Amino acid sequence: MPRLVDHEVRRREITDATRRVIVAGGLDAVTFQTVAAEAELSVRLVQYYFGTKREFLLATHRSVIQDAGARFAQRMSGLPPGAGPREFIRAVLTELLPLDDRRRGEAIVLGAFNTAAIAGRGISAEETLAAPRALVTIVAEQLRRGGSPDSAEPNAELILAAVGGLAQGMLPGHYTAQSAVALVDHLLDLILGAPGN
Amino acid sequence: MPRLVDHEVRRREITDATRRVIVAGGLDAVTFQTVAAEAELSVRLVQYYFGTKREFLLATHRSVIQDAGARFAQRMSGLPPGAGPREFIRAVLTELLPLDDRRRGEAIVLGAFNTAAIAGRGISAEETLAAPRALVTIVAEQLRRGGSPDSAEPNAELILAAVGGLAQGMLPGHYTAQSAVALVDHLLDLILGAPGN
Repeated sequence: MPRLVDHEVRRREITDATRRVIVAGGLDAVTFQTVAAEAELSVRLVQYYFGTKREFLLATHRSVIQDAGARFAQRMSGLPPGAGPREFIRAVLTELLPLDDRRRGEAIVLGAFNTAAIAGRGISAEETLAAPRALVTIVAEQLRRGGSPDSAEPNAELILAAVGGLAQGMLPGHYTAQSAVALVDHLLDLILGAPGN
Repeated sequence: MPRLVDHEVRRREITDATRRVIVAGGLDAVTFQTVAAEAELSVRLVQYYFGTKREFLLATHRSVIQDAGARFAQRMSGLPPGAGPREFIRAVLTELLPLDDRRRGEAIVLGAFNTAAIAGRGISAEETLAAPRALVTIVAEQLRRGGSPDSAEPNAELILAAVGGLAQGMLPGHYTAQSAVALVDHLLDLILGAPGN
């Protein structure tokens, strides 16, 4: 029986391998065999950590959300003390855009889970909707700080819908990183007023 | 050899069946066998109309775009003569949201193609990006008519990114039809000013 610390490492190896399998071939490519091969572990070991395919799919989804959450926290702690709502929201949003390979992989995995939730293939919408709802709450809170309490909720929903569309549209190349970030800034100008106003 | 009129009907039967297969099981579920079974035709007949899987996938994508285009045209011709940019854009956008089963099916099919273009599985981004680009041009034209020529392009891009995010977010239930339409109106308020202003 491996030590406790190894458990975490192993689970992480397996969920990371699952992400790579999804990026390469979609959710349908995920089996105990493909994930074990990608992780360079035995099928039996993968089954020891995750009894069912559904279990390691959900663990993979959680790992993406947790990674993004950890990056948000890091970005927040790196903001200057007097940072306003705009800098705060901008920091959150740019972590959601696939601006590097890691975030690109995450966007593909989240897109695949969204599709699976739609088709009802073992993944329910409830399991995938908690994170976007939490983000709406966070962004709305910042908008209230920014002084527009009445429309904070719809503005936050709009911001996250737009960023979702931009993130998915960046994947096949409809937006470049530069044009997506410029559009995020443009939307924040519309909602919060141009910077310096 | 069937008559010319039958050709069109048959091709339509096949692309409609392909849509249903994608909605039920994703792009990976599409084979000559599953589509033939769904269309209640022989595999040989499907192969007669579409030599390769890639060919009937692209024909299915085109059929979705053409259907949406035909609905846009119908909505446009139904607008009153003095209709402004807001009514025009609103009519286009609501045709893009999955507000009924047909449009819901289309949104799932387009989402699946987006994912396939990303993974490079026989579908290139060029084949799927023409339609969103055309929509940006149409919406930007209307925004220019609405008197904001400088920011027409970024505003149009934002509108379509937001509608893309709303459409995909409606599928697993993050937005209801009502909340998605309200958010579209809210965005148009931000960009064009509230109605009556």
